[in-house]
Amino acid sequence: MNLRRLFSFCLATLALVLTAHGAAVAAPRNVILIIGDGMDDHQITIARNYLVGARGRLVLDAMALRSTAQVLAVSDDEPERVVYVADSANTATALATGIVTSRGRLATTAGSDRDITTIIELAQAAGMKTGIVSTASITDATPASFVAHISMRFCENPSAMEDVSMRGIHLGSCSADLKRNGGLGSIAEQIADSGVDVVLGGGADHFVPKAEGREESVLETAIAGGFHVVTSASELAAAPKDRKLLGLFSPSHLPVRWQGEGGRVAEKPETSMLHMLHRYLGEVTFPEPMKCEANPAANEAPSLKQMTDAALEHLADDGGKGFFLTIESASIDKQSHARNACGSIGELEQLEEALESALAFAKTHPETLILVTADHGQAAQLVPNESLFAGFGIPVYSPGRIVRLTTRDGAIMVVNYATNDFSYEEHTGVNVPLFANEVGVGRVPTMVTQPEIFEIMAEYLGLKGGASRSR
Amino acid sequence: MNLRRLFSFCLATLALVLTAHGAAVAAPRNVILIIGDGMDDHQITIARNYLVGARGRLVLDAMALRSTAQVLAVSDDEPERVVYVADSANTATALATGIVTSRGRLATTAGSDRDITTIIELAQAAGMKTGIVSTASITDATPASFVAHISMRFCENPSAMEDVSMRGIHLGSCSADLKRNGGLGSIAEQIADSGVDVVLGGGADHFVPKAEGREESVLETAIAGGFHVVTSASELAAAPKDRKLLGLFSPSHLPVRWQGEGGRVAEKPETSMLHMLHRYLGEVTFPEPMKCEANPAANEAPSLKQMTDAALEHLADDGGKGFFLTIESASIDKQSHARNACGSIGELEQLEEALESALAFAKTHPETLILVTADHGQAAQLVPNESLFAGFGIPVYSPGRIVRLTTRDGAIMVVNYATNDFSYEEHTGVNVPLFANEVGVGRVPTMVTQPEIFEIMAEYLGLKGGASRSR
Repeated sequence: MNLRRLFSFCLATLALVLTAHGAAVAAPRNVILIIGDGMDDHQITIARNYLVGARGRLVLDAMALRSTAQVLAVSDDEPERVVYVADSANTATALATGIVTSRGRLATTAGSDRDITTIIELAQAAGMKTGIVSTASITDATPASFVAHISMRFCENPSAMEDVSMRGIHLGSCSADLKRNGGLGSIAEQIADSGVDVVLGGGADHFVPKAEGREESVLETAIAGGFHVVTSASELAAAPKDRKLLGLFSPSHLPVRWQGEGGRVAEKPETSMLHMLHRYLGEVTFPEPMKCEANPAANEAPSLKQMTDAALEHLADDGGKGFFLTIESASIDKQSHARNACGSIGELEQLEEALESALAFAKTHPETLILVTADHGQAAQLVPNESLFAGFGIPVYSPGRIVRLTTRDGAIMVVNYATNDFSYEEHTGVNVPLFANEVGVGRVPTMVTQPEIFEIMAEYLGLKGGASRSR
Repeated sequence: MNLRRLFSFCLATLALVLTAHGAAVAAPRNVILIIGDGMDDHQITIARNYLVGARGRLVLDAMALRSTAQVLAVSDDEPERVVYVADSANTATALATGIVTSRGRLATTAGSDRDITTIIELAQAAGMKTGIVSTASITDATPASFVAHISMRFCENPSAMEDVSMRGIHLGSCSADLKRNGGLGSIAEQIADSGVDVVLGGGADHFVPKAEGREESVLETAIAGGFHVVTSASELAAAPKDRKLLGLFSPSHLPVRWQGEGGRVAEKPETSMLHMLHRYLGEVTFPEPMKCEANPAANEAPSLKQMTDAALEHLADDGGKGFFLTIESASIDKQSHARNACGSIGELEQLEEALESALAFAKTHPETLILVTADHGQAAQLVPNESLFAGFGIPVYSPGRIVRLTTRDGAIMVVNYATNDFSYEEHTGVNVPLFANEVGVGRVPTMVTQPEIFEIMAEYLGLKGGASRSR
């Protein structure tokens, strides 16, 4: 046998051995999708600098694969028309269903309002277990898009279906989604009616109203439907493993871990009187630097890590068909809207801890694909403490609001919020990071769209999907 | 022989065959480092949306590997202290030397002002060819950091050494770098004195003054030192391949390809009188949407691709020891400072074209490691055209300045510039993207620091480096 033939023979043998080896250890395949809401590269850099120092490494930084995901929405009036800046409803829909829809929609098509089957529904149909974990209200757009189909994200409970309003302003209606109109009901009702094995988060208030057309509360219908309900970390730890589990640990979103000193958020730089005469004159006073401190509103709710651990324990099913679990670190986004850099940083720390749990699980369950991504970009920008133009000796300052944080590096880090002048900042349209563990290597290209993340997960789990799934 | 033994035997044989195969095709190793100045993920997303549409793919998007690079500076007064937002001088120094320094410095240490050997100097010492290409003045911080050692980036020519001023404001001095004080002279003089094989860019004006202590201009000393000088695309095409080549195609930076309509850059949203009474009242008028148009100031200078092609032709050296080439697309940053989204987009298109040339070269020269990265983040943010809070019916708008672009998607893309209220925007401290071709797979982890990029390149080329290199 010459060298070339030996080479070919060896390649064939290797392929055979590897295939046999693969078959020998075949185990149920699992997918854990971790979503850092609003977790773009600015948020990660800001959190790294604060949590471990600029020269430190996050758990995220050690992931086997890094890619980027294009974020997109479409217009509801003209569903062919691209909208560059998305929201959590349409992006979670893209991840959960593989279909790009319009802002505000959960697993329904833009314009035509058809329900789109989610990966959780596909997994259930294939006999797999499923779970949803979030630090938000479990009825919030990101977690809910994996299980509920509704035209407007704010229709979270039966009392908020016909007149959806915020701050007294009417924003729309979900009348068509009422059960009596042939719909599936509010988001809370759809969760209560679902077969998801583990649902953990906040949002207890949304389960208090009576279910549409019934005398029981939504929570009571959930219990009647087979859910074991827990409301504290200790109840969570003691929950039976053989029942559907619904954990509601807070009336609304779970409180975040950290806040700015004394509750301070971003503030406007203040200029002296003289500066009003000419922009080159006078002086500017920046907000005092501060550290992050414990949020006094933080309650006894379990951490994202505790919820993740409980969900994994509930879903692990070595003799079964595997599971799909999505985990959201919600308040990176919510605290960036509110210009509270400390809130976002503490929440990203929660994602890090949950990711550690997921990676530990994958060590003993190697057929587990872990993906970590964000749904969209957020406003926060890391800007200089000393302007690049400080040498000119004139006032140079952000037109927005800034937080100045003293870090463990002994330096000052400035976070700028300047996407708008409203009470809440805007999202941005930047590509967001996508990470995968070793299982993702060879499956995740260096750039994807959000629907392609759905396709990667569905293919890994052997689920049939695609645009024709709509029912 | 049982299966396990056969497996081991085959593995060993394979390794042997692959090694022998590798040795048989051994060729000189090359590194092409492409730097998109200020090219963070926002800039890439904005350019993708405009150039190929949101659903399109850039050349960058198809790179084999994607990573991210931590960007860092240190304080010049206290070199141990971290500075989170860097400039092009200190970041190019980190890439070129593996050492983090303070803002404004080229290949010199923070505080102690020692010269640090660059990868170009290491490559030259090893008998390799070297090249520097930029759309900026070749004396600008990014290209110059690879060959010059100086304490202040603005000391670009012999006339700008003792009193460095901009707009009449004294910013500092490079007296210690004067040759008569034992220094290496201005940046232009250091380039003229260098042994770099190909230097192509703008900045002819910096070669006009007399070299320090001599009767000849800096350009004349370059010619005396062996450089063949070209000043047009046709001269570039006709340049001899066996001489050092200096191309100076513009008095300063090369003009960018595109501008906003009629030269428009970002503008402030305008609010009605009523809005002065209360922020919930009145109306806001946004800048008119526009398209990018050809920059009338664009001259006959070669494109970045033409310069890249010429440099590769000059450096390709199949029988030699390989080369190191750095290519900068400079004005992604410069045009973002100036709030000209079209300028940045057109410049990123130039990077794409240069990258295509590099990839084509690597096809026929497979031992070529191509890395593409940015030096630091920039101000531009992709924000919503319709605010997420439009439903409230009140004026919501950026406190900064915005550009509204009509794209090939038939949609409007809004770019926000709001890091400061000065004439030029700030850099940001975000992690920046790092891409590699197949050669980088297994060599580039999913997150690096900028000094680690130097280490990866030096190791690939077999160059000895490290912190002790300072002379």
